[in-house]
Amino acid sequence: MIRLGVLISGSGSNLQAIIDAIAEGRLDASIELVVSSRPDAYGIERAKQAGIPTLALNKESYADPLAADTLISGELEKANVDYVVMAGYMRMVRGPLLQAFPDRIINIHPALLPSFPGAHGIADAFAAGVKITGVTVHLASEIYDEGPIIAQRAVEICEDDTLESLEQRIHSVEHQLYPQVLQLIAQGRVRVDESGVVRIRED
Amino acid sequence: MIRLGVLISGSGSNLQAIIDAIAEGRLDASIELVVSSRPDAYGIERAKQAGIPTLALNKESYADPLAADTLISGELEKANVDYVVMAGYMRMVRGPLLQAFPDRIINIHPALLPSFPGAHGIADAFAAGVKITGVTVHLASEIYDEGPIIAQRAVEICEDDTLESLEQRIHSVEHQLYPQVLQLIAQGRVRVDESGVVRIRED
Repeated sequence: MIRLGVLISGSGSNLQAIIDAIAEGRLDASIELVVSSRPDAYGIERAKQAGIPTLALNKESYADPLAADTLISGELEKANVDYVVMAGYMRMVRGPLLQAFPDRIINIHPALLPSFPGAHGIADAFAAGVKITGVTVHLASEIYDEGPIIAQRAVEICEDDTLESLEQRIHSVEHQLYPQVLQLIAQGRVRVDESGVVRIRED
Repeated sequence: MIRLGVLISGSGSNLQAIIDAIAEGRLDASIELVVSSRPDAYGIERAKQAGIPTLALNKESYADPLAADTLISGELEKANVDYVVMAGYMRMVRGPLLQAFPDRIINIHPALLPSFPGAHGIADAFAAGVKITGVTVHLASEIYDEGPIIAQRAVEICEDDTLESLEQRIHSVEHQLYPQVLQLIAQGRVRVDESGVVRIRED
């Protein structure tokens, strides 16, 4: 059993996928705290409905970003969180959080990193005309959308795809992959080797 | 039936895959000329064994790269080539060739572009620790490893892969994919749309 803190900014559909995986016994974890960078994020409702404590910040909270991350890491530590899960969190994680949870902050990105980093991974891939994109789960590091890659899934872009149909397919892969990767972590099967590459121990 | 010129620099295993696909009726094309940037490339032997005319250049031929590409495009035009296929060709294609064959020079790259461009696509992906890499077939442009993407295939990097085992798997996907894409071109099903994205017409 691992104790998770989840960082969100929006609808929280990945948060919901994690809540559901725990409820269905596919993920040996508990969510101890949901932190939202926006007070109006629908994900806060999802957390409340699941009986999970929430911390809602706002724009002003981030006026001093280091102070915000000090506050967040303090709350996560009070909640005895083992791992921090970024789920559509639209803020950088900075020094105070990275130092409090070294190699224990996990992010999901809707593209096959290192291709298409940044806030518009799906739209950028679609506009570039690549034929394969996908989903990446990785450890957060000082550099946005870098850090050791834990798992990736390819998603084909089809001839009749619109941006919307591609977004739907990518999100649906995210919702499958994220709980699976968290379960690998819960089972203690994920480590970063000396060259910075993630190794997954066979079951 | 399309008439191909093939540019090589080394062993010519992709050239062989194309020769085989033509011989087996999977690709409606003929190879009219094989140009090698190196006189000792084994691919020259493969061309000779298949009865294909060859043009072997050397380091000195490229002392003036524009002159080299003028020479090459002149020979390809004399051979009435429709499309130019880069198959492990380790030189840039420059203005004279690009202008002589606009949107008609095709390249294969052993990674999922835009990730891992350059001369070491497989090794770079392996060292970076990505979990999915692949193969890209694209139209050549002024910028190395850019240009509209025609097709991509994902290749998973497994926990027990070595660089060598990954190279083998990638090359085997290249040998399947390249003739398939050339056949799409032979069938007139490939076009670049107004936004620079390649569209494949359904059969």
